[in-house]
Amino acid sequence: MASAALKDELDIVIPTIRNLDFLEMWRSFFEQYHLIIVQDGDPSKTIKVPDGFDYELYNRNDINKILGPRSSCISFKDSACRCFGYMVSKKKYIYTIDDDCFVAKDPSGKDINALEQHIKNLLCPSTPNFFNTLYDPFREGADYVRGYPFSLREGVPTAVSHGLWLNIPDYDAPTQLVKPLERNTRYVDMVLTIPKGTLFPMCGMNLAFDRELIGPAMYFGLMGDGQPIGRYDDMWAGWCCKVICDHLGLGIKTGLPYIYHSKASNPFVNLKKEYLGIFWQEEIIPFFQSHNFSKDCTTVQKCYVELSKQVKEKLGKVDPYFLKLADAMVTWIEAWDMLNPPNKDSANASSK
Amino acid sequence: MASAALKDELDIVIPTIRNLDFLEMWRSFFEQYHLIIVQDGDPSKTIKVPDGFDYELYNRNDINKILGPRSSCISFKDSACRCFGYMVSKKKYIYTIDDDCFVAKDPSGKDINALEQHIKNLLCPSTPNFFNTLYDPFREGADYVRGYPFSLREGVPTAVSHGLWLNIPDYDAPTQLVKPLERNTRYVDMVLTIPKGTLFPMCGMNLAFDRELIGPAMYFGLMGDGQPIGRYDDMWAGWCCKVICDHLGLGIKTGLPYIYHSKASNPFVNLKKEYLGIFWQEEIIPFFQSHNFSKDCTTVQKCYVELSKQVKEKLGKVDPYFLKLADAMVTWIEAWDMLNPPNKDSANASSK
Repeated sequence: MASAALKDELDIVIPTIRNLDFLEMWRSFFEQYHLIIVQDGDPSKTIKVPDGFDYELYNRNDINKILGPRSSCISFKDSACRCFGYMVSKKKYIYTIDDDCFVAKDPSGKDINALEQHIKNLLCPSTPNFFNTLYDPFREGADYVRGYPFSLREGVPTAVSHGLWLNIPDYDAPTQLVKPLERNTRYVDMVLTIPKGTLFPMCGMNLAFDRELIGPAMYFGLMGDGQPIGRYDDMWAGWCCKVICDHLGLGIKTGLPYIYHSKASNPFVNLKKEYLGIFWQEEIIPFFQSHNFSKDCTTVQKCYVELSKQVKEKLGKVDPYFLKLADAMVTWIEAWDMLNPPNKDSANASSK
Repeated sequence: MASAALKDELDIVIPTIRNLDFLEMWRSFFEQYHLIIVQDGDPSKTIKVPDGFDYELYNRNDINKILGPRSSCISFKDSACRCFGYMVSKKKYIYTIDDDCFVAKDPSGKDINALEQHIKNLLCPSTPNFFNTLYDPFREGADYVRGYPFSLREGVPTAVSHGLWLNIPDYDAPTQLVKPLERNTRYVDMVLTIPKGTLFPMCGMNLAFDRELIGPAMYFGLMGDGQPIGRYDDMWAGWCCKVICDHLGLGIKTGLPYIYHSKASNPFVNLKKEYLGIFWQEEIIPFFQSHNFSKDCTTVQKCYVELSKQVKEKLGKVDPYFLKLADAMVTWIEAWDMLNPPNKDSANASSK
């Protein structure tokens, strides 16, 4: 079984400010894996983890101690802090999940093993260069359809698996306000590759990735305490990852698996966090859509540093926040390379 | 109800060589619409149409009489002849279906009204400029997710609705030979927009489109009698339509509705028809992927004529067949404009 095979190759990263009771529900699916818990907020608070889980826990004091001055790139009082967990992991794969996400049921009523589906997604190739109308051609019972070029059928390595949510959909504050009662009840039995050249809104609630392939680009930015915006952490990571994956010939899949998202966050609080992002994204999206990497960008790190320069140059005009973010992007890469000496992970990433 | 509203605005085009017994199964869904039957092969043969359907039927003699020397652009002994039906229609919308396609059932066991779903798809906007992870945001119970730029939420007009097939999947001959028993049993409850810049394999089996928006690009090429290839008619139309839609800011949707495809065609016969196409598509796809229209191309007709010149120049080197095809593309536009005087349809198309 795919998931059993990855027992020693995958960490589960959970950002939290509370006791992790939600893990009880995931016990049968998560218990065999190692957890990296990133405690947000007050470091003196004790987070309870149910018995029987294998975990390490980092609070703000730990982050400051490990990264020193470079800890400035890790957000505080925002779930964006989760990316610290990506950095300290030594595994090939990461699965990250929010602590208000429960096990969903498929249409037959069976519990969905989200992690197993993510592993399936990551272990088979992506097809970003041409759309297959029967979706993931590597799925059992499916294949490439007539007219799909044979030279493209090998696919490309999959770097990211983006899962979805039943019950509370991942809406922005304005949509939450307008449709407070909307629930996602539709189970779409499908995985597909986001085509090359197309951006998407990557949600960090239920997300897996290959950290050897794309880890250094999975930076969740500067959000929360002392920052002018929130709720764009995963979006920022998604836009950066997508353009880098497109450049390096890697794939991003979206669709299955679903988790059950239990609770809508407060739309009024969200609006306050989001409103600058809502303006800014109108300039950020064209920036990413028109972005091209130079030929020297042969590793994720090189791509990311070049991207940070462009962010400074082109988005710095939008708001000084982006100057700070661009610097933090560089700090993030320095911190990543400090904890993941380049002769190991980066060499792998660049050989793909 | 959407479908009732379009009663006078949609024609159903069916290419056939046999009696249309399959219409009995579609009676309750099709009876209110006008059918355009394009009889392929021996024109002296009589095609029986079940009582109660409103139809017009064209055989090869009719096509020759109506188009004169321009009838050379309409394929013979190949279902590509169906595009003649698109040309003689005077309606805004076309639905085309193969005569071996039956009514499929949804997971609850209910008969699927394919036409009604196509109309839904065509009547609401497409979103080619950014991927929405909950798929069609205009569907009931769905919306744009967090991080989707607000400036793109109006969408663009939908020109094409590409439906899928349960039972026999639309595989090429090599895949048919390797997987003779594979059946598509998975009902994916979803419609999505094919992103801008991404090509897809458009199948003509279960296809609807807005002929005012994209009709002149829906040419199914030269296939069958006297031609070196077959089974690339709908693919050709799909590639041309996609690049033109991308250029003109129109959308193409794929997914629901499903029909039940009853019978696999003979893979040995198919291999003979396809094998040149299998080679050629390796050059055709990069041609379309790198194609850019000039700014003068403000209507579908202008785009199509410019595309024909590029086909001649760039694909003519691949095989002389493409020189012939490029000429036929121009003839097709002349014939289209003859039957659809530009002051009516083209003016509409260019105003979008």
